[in-house]
Parts: sequence; structure tokens; C-alpha cells
Amino acid sequence: MIRILLAASAALAFGTPLSAQDMNAVAALRDAALSDTLAYEITEGITTEVGPRLAGTEAEQRARDWSVARLTALGFQNVRDEPFPLKTWVRGEERAAIVSPFPQPLVLTALGNSGATPPRGIEGEIVYFPTIADLQAAPAASLKGKIAFVSHAMTATQDGSQYTTYGVVRRIGPNVAAEKGAAAILIRSIGTDYHRNPHAGGTNFEDGVRPIPAAALALPDAEQLERVLRRGKPVRVKLVLTPKQIGARTSGNVIAEVPGSEPAAGIVLVACHLDSWDLGTGAFDDAAGCGIVAAAAKRIMDAGQPRRTIRVLFAGSEEVGVFGGKAYFEAHRRDPHVLAAESDFGADRIWRVDFNLPAAAKPVGDRIATALLPLGIGRGTAIAGGGADVSAVIASGVAGIDLQQHGTRYFDYHHTPDDTLDKIDPVQMRQNVAAWTAMLAIAANAPEEIGAVPARN
Amino acid sequence: MIRILLAASAALAFGTPLSAQDMNAVAALRDAALSDTLAYEITEGITTEVGPRLAGTEAEQRARDWSVARLTALGFQNVRDEPFPLKTWVRGEERAAIVSPFPQPLVLTALGNSGATPPRGIEGEIVYFPTIADLQAAPAASLKGKIAFVSHAMTATQDGSQYTTYGVVRRIGPNVAAEKGAAAILIRSIGTDYHRNPHAGGTNFEDGVRPIPAAALALPDAEQLERVLRRGKPVRVKLVLTPKQIGARTSGNVIAEVPGSEPAAGIVLVACHLDSWDLGTGAFDDAAGCGIVAAAAKRIMDAGQPRRTIRVLFAGSEEVGVFGGKAYFEAHRRDPHVLAAESDFGADRIWRVDFNLPAAAKPVGDRIATALLPLGIGRGTAIAGGGADVSAVIASGVAGIDLQQHGTRYFDYHHTPDDTLDKIDPVQMRQNVAAWTAMLAIAANAPEEIGAVPARN
Repeated sequence: MIRILLAASAALAFGTPLSAQDMNAVAALRDAALSDTLAYEITEGITTEVGPRLAGTEAEQRARDWSVARLTALGFQNVRDEPFPLKTWVRGEERAAIVSPFPQPLVLTALGNSGATPPRGIEGEIVYFPTIADLQAAPAASLKGKIAFVSHAMTATQDGSQYTTYGVVRRIGPNVAAEKGAAAILIRSIGTDYHRNPHAGGTNFEDGVRPIPAAALALPDAEQLERVLRRGKPVRVKLVLTPKQIGARTSGNVIAEVPGSEPAAGIVLVACHLDSWDLGTGAFDDAAGCGIVAAAAKRIMDAGQPRRTIRVLFAGSEEVGVFGGKAYFEAHRRDPHVLAAESDFGADRIWRVDFNLPAAAKPVGDRIATALLPLGIGRGTAIAGGGADVSAVIASGVAGIDLQQHGTRYFDYHHTPDDTLDKIDPVQMRQNVAAWTAMLAIAANAPEEIGAVPARN
Repeated sequence: MIRILLAASAALAFGTPLSAQDMNAVAALRDAALSDTLAYEITEGITTEVGPRLAGTEAEQRARDWSVARLTALGFQNVRDEPFPLKTWVRGEERAAIVSPFPQPLVLTALGNSGATPPRGIEGEIVYFPTIADLQAAPAASLKGKIAFVSHAMTATQDGSQYTTYGVVRRIGPNVAAEKGAAAILIRSIGTDYHRNPHAGGTNFEDGVRPIPAAALALPDAEQLERVLRRGKPVRVKLVLTPKQIGARTSGNVIAEVPGSEPAAGIVLVACHLDSWDLGTGAFDDAAGCGIVAAAAKRIMDAGQPRRTIRVLFAGSEEVGVFGGKAYFEAHRRDPHVLAAESDFGADRIWRVDFNLPAAAKPVGDRIATALLPLGIGRGTAIAGGGADVSAVIASGVAGIDLQQHGTRYFDYHHTPDDTLDKIDPVQMRQNVAAWTAMLAIAANAPEEIGAVPARN
């Protein structure tokens, strides 16, 4: 560890020709952004005037209309809504109860792409699996007519990395249970709070596997069901879930630009996603990200035309399968992107920056890391991969920067009814805007060429 | 303030003939209770094996059956269920949404005794009142066909005292709105959390006033509705609430005793309530209280027969109007009560003790206050009034003791879906058991007579 710290310190001290740009101007822009109000205004506007905006619904369309109007009014150029078709799933009724031995309701929510029960519901005996591995190990057909229940508990971490480990239950658990003949599956929510707020999120069934009803229990309910199971008697649960696939609807990506003075210098893409799960108003996930990137881009625009074009992407349909990011990549893969970054992890303080830059652009990264130091942001050693909506762009060989946010409380709210405006801390949000402003001020104006990185797709 | 502190200090130093009881034995019982597991076991049992237990329903009956069996198994005497009839209200469907200008759902719950909408709901324009005083000042008939919305915000306090101030909106607001012709009323939940968990609670309509639909919005929803209203356009809300009055059902009080060796020395009554609101499992409110008082009484029982009878009361139907406490008082007003106390404010640490003792029993109070000092419990100057279920007994002239619990987070969970077992901190709960054990050890064995106090009813 000491070796790594010394190496980083040497890089800061000797490696960076800071004079390649006017770093005092960058610092002034950065520090002015600590008084930003626009990011919060945008977040407040989307969450209040639109509210929940599930991909493919008319609410998502209203969010795009709202965004086109607002970004146009802010002075961005080439503002447009780029529609694409989306196979759309919508929530129905959702109720559950322990029928025996101790009758009582359970709070849950259907996972995206869940199958439906008949309108009057189904009833079945619970088969308990502590982890996804236990479910995977269950013999074929052993779940016939039963309701699988998988309950393993993620832990809150600063980097949110347990979402990858534990999220697998949600992503593949329903398919595994369906293949083994289960009538339905319940999972402990992929989340870290103890409120009666289940965490939504998408799942997928493979071709040829018939979707079964699949739902996430709020954490108190998952633990209650475990306690009831520990009494050792058969536990029967009744479940009513009536979501529907409603066929192809229209989603879309909203794009806005700050045109650069040297089009050949390329495009810096900054993204967020505009759709949200339907239970909350999508403040943390991800109106905040849209507020942050738009506010930072606006600050660069107002400071004078940048060298490179800054393109702001409010992606559609991220939650249900990153369909906006994919549609963007298909439509714009030939555009001269030189850098991509996304804000999609709430609005809490940024604590680390990771890069994926070609060697020739290392000084650009060094200057950014230096400019972020006063904001309490350290330099990480991970290879930046972008948020979901820019990951295809970065994987194709475009350089990337990850401004990593504190995630300790992110999975308390993520995909729940609790993802509402009151969770946004305006002070921490301003620190985000300042970091993005500093990053954009440097990246969009760097005199160095920012070339390709190795493609990973 | 200095004068008061000096007076209290003098009382501790000189006022108390501690030798009237074996205070070492009391201290030993108290400190052993800091390892108590029974209070948590009872709380876990009621909340897991019964769950929500709304007054008058079969679930409340199951809770009584559970309690009679458990208290009997613990060795208490004269364990019984004393039934009484209860006019019973049950929740139905509850949904609401802003229809215009910004369509989106709102999370709410019907107040107890709320009227119902037609099954398909009603729609109306919101009339906003910042406080109950503003609603009261509205001209007669000015709300005809409108939906009143009263949104004033209580603050979390250690003593929970704002519940009295702000709870008035819930208690009388619906009646006031109905008298002015409102089609319905929405209130900001009487609570302090920012989760999408509305706070239930009872309201009442005066004779001759027809009950209107009345519901509490979760705090994020109340603030969202305020933000929408601040846009200045008419706001229309659709509301579906289908609760029902289902007529007379049976509720009841569960009673258990530790018989005293000197019946003439009277009864020490320790109470909690067994019913809960239906949204959570009633862990904080009030399975915890039942666990605490039963565990403390059991410790005294196991230490040898006390001088006075200890009577444990698990009251029914507290939430819906203290009907259990009233039924108990009617049935037992002639019983020789000498002291009454109740645990009904969660399971967080006790920080203060207040007394209502006759002068001759002052040494009993002094000894109790002294025995509580090692637990971090200071002596207050309020006149103990008891929890709701013993308030009639105390008001009739029986001495009382209030062991005041920390209430800072109580109104985060109170009457919400979030009132679940995971909110109980076992360490704090044990401090409660220790305090109640010390209090009972002294009060049930005090050689002094504990006579009447001035009646207040």
C-alpha cells in the first residue's frame, strides 16, 4: 500500500504539465459551481412536474418533453428527442400474505418482466434458499408448484460493489426457479434499508422459459418470512401479481449540445438517464444525474465556447435494460466521441476519480485529478467503464472518466418508493456539479488529442 | 435552573431513608435484568406469530390467545382474557393520484373511522391549509366538493411532546373539514420520517357529522403535493378509500398476576397494549411495552413473592380510542390499586422518571429514583399521568409512575408499516427491563403505605 501511495504522490508532484491549460480559470469555474442551483432545480423539476417515469410509458414521454423544453430554454443547441421502440412492461396489482401458520400481509413488488398470477392469485408452499447458489443446486423439477424464496443480504458499501454480487439473485433467480418448475419466486430486495419499501428492478427469462411471477420482498418482510420459516412448520403464501407486457411503445433519448469551436477535436459525451422505476420519483436514480451533467455543461457553455463539443445525453429506458444506451450507440457509433462519462449513482459526494485514457492524454487526466483534489476527490486505479448508458461507447474504444459517488446510502433508496426529492442533499449535489464542471472545463478544452483506448467489445 | 438542580441534589443526598428496603437486592435484580432476553422474545413472538392486530379483528383475538398461553406458561397467576364489545372499523382499498397538472400517484392511508369513497373513487380540487388553524378559519361551506389538505410539520423531540400539538390535525381536522362541506380531507402524516410510509391513526366525527374520507399522506407525498401546489395551477386529486365500519366485534384485555403476600397492601398495575395499527406489526407500538412489563414482573415473581400483587395488563383496543383502558377501569375501579404505570412509547432507553405519589410515599419514589440513577435515568418534575390505558386509573386518584423513554425516533415508525421487529434495539430494551424491574422491586415490596393522590377526573 505504501508503494502505491508513493507512486501516486510522485505523479502529482512531477508528472503533470499543469500549464498546458489555465488552471486558475478551471479552479474559478469549479469553485463557482459550489454555489450551483441549477442541478437541484432540474432534479426538482423532473421529479415534481413529471414524477415516476417508467420506460415506454406516457410519463417517460412527458419527461422527454419536459427535458427538451428545459434544455432548449437553457440555451443548449441541437436539442432533440431521438425515439426508439420499446417492448414495454407495466406493473399491475401486487399483494401477498402468509396464509399459514401465521396469517399476515407481506410487502413486495413485482420485478420488471415478471409473469402474472391469475387475477385472484396463487397459493403455494415456500421453499427457502439462503443464497442463489442453493437455488441453483436444487434438483430439476423439485420446485413444481412451490414458491421459491431466496434471501441473501447485501451490505451497504461506499462503492456499491455488492450490487453486482447480490443483484444476481434478481437478474437470474426467476429464470432458474422457472426452469425448476416453481410457481413463483420471492427474493429479498437487493437493498440495504429496513423500511417496508421493496426494491424493484428488472429480471429476464431466457427464450423458451415461461415467465413466472417474480417479486422482491421489503427487507423487514423477508426477515419476517425467515423468522416464520424458522418455526419449522410448512409456510404457505398467497400471491397476487398482475403485471403485463403491453407490447411495443415509444421510448427515446434526449440530446443537447454545446457546440465546440473545433469539431475535429471530437465530442465529450456526458450522460444520465431520464427514465425511472415507477415506485418513486427517480430523484437519486437518476434525475440527479441529469441535473448534475446539465448544470456542469451549462457552466462551460456560459464560460465561452469550448474547443470540443459537449454532448449531453438524457438516456431513456436504462432501468429496463439500457435500451437507450444501446439505441444511442447504434445511432451515433460513428460520431467522433473522444471521451464519455455518466452520472448515475445518486447525488452524494464524489470521492474518487478513475480514468481510461490513452497514454498521450495522460496529462489531461493528471490535470483533472489535480483540479479535483480541493473537492476531497482522490485518484483511483480502476479502469473507468462509464455508467450503463455510455458503457457501449467506452467499450468500443472511447476514453472514459468515472467520477465515483459515495454509495453508502444509495441502496437504501434505489428502485424503491423512497427515491424522492427529499433524499437529495443540495450541498453534496453542488460538490458533484463542481467536479463535473472542473472535469469538463479541462477535457473539453485540453489542447492534447484524446485518442482511442483499446476496445473491449 | 440552578435552584432546581440544587434542590434535587439535596433530596438525593439527605431526603431518602434508603435502608427501608434492601437496596442491594434491588440493585442485583436491576443489573441482572440488563441481560434480559424475555422482553425481546415476547416482542418477537407477538410480532412474528401474530403480526398486525387491529382492534376488534380476529388477529387481535389471536394476539390475546397467544398472550394468555405465554403468560400462563411463564407462571403468572389468574391469567385471563376479559372480553368487551367493540364497534370495529377496518381498512379497505386506498389509492390516490394527482390527476392534474402533473399526473402521479400519492401514497396515503385512511385514518381510523374515515368515511369511504364510492368504489371507483372521487375526484376534487385541493384546497391547501398550512395549519389546522387555517382550516378552522375557512368560511362555512367554503369547501363544498373540494378536498382539504392540511400540511403542518411536527418535529422529532426527545419527549415526543409535539404529538400532542400536531396530532390535533388528525384528531379533529376531518370533523372540521366535514362540517365545512369538504368531500374529503388529506393531512400530512403526524410523523417525522421521510419514507413513503403514511402514519395511520384514529379520528372522530361528532354526532350528526357525516364521516368523509380522511387520509394521511406520507411526508414525501405531502411535500410533493405542496410543491405541485406552489406552481400555482389548480391541483386535482383522485382518491379511492373504501374502509368500513363492520359493527360490534369482540376485543378484550389480557390480565395476569403475581399474587402478593399481603393483599391488603394493594395492587401495582403495570400495563401495555396488545392491539396495533394494521400497517406494521406493532413492535414499537406496543408489543415492546408488553415484553418489558411482563419480563420485569416475571423477574420479581422469580425473586420471591412480593408484598403487593403485581397485575400485568395487556390492554386491547388502545389505538382506536383506549377502549381497553376504559373497559378495565369500569371492571376494576373498585380493585385496591395503589400504583399504576404503563410502557407504551417504543423500546428505546428510559431517560427520566416522573412520579405522582402521596406525601407519605415520597420515600418510595426517592428510593426508585436512586435505584434508577445507574441506568442514566434522571428525575423529572412532571406529574406522572400514566400511559393511555392506565390514565383513567391514575386520574381516579391512584398513584402513578412514568418511566419516560427516548422518543426521538418514535414518530419515525409510529402507526406506519415500518413499525416492525427490526426497529427494536435489544440493548436499549434491556435497559427498560432493568428500570421496570427496579421500580417494581421497590414499589411492590415497599413497607410504606402507598395511598391515594388527588383525583383529577
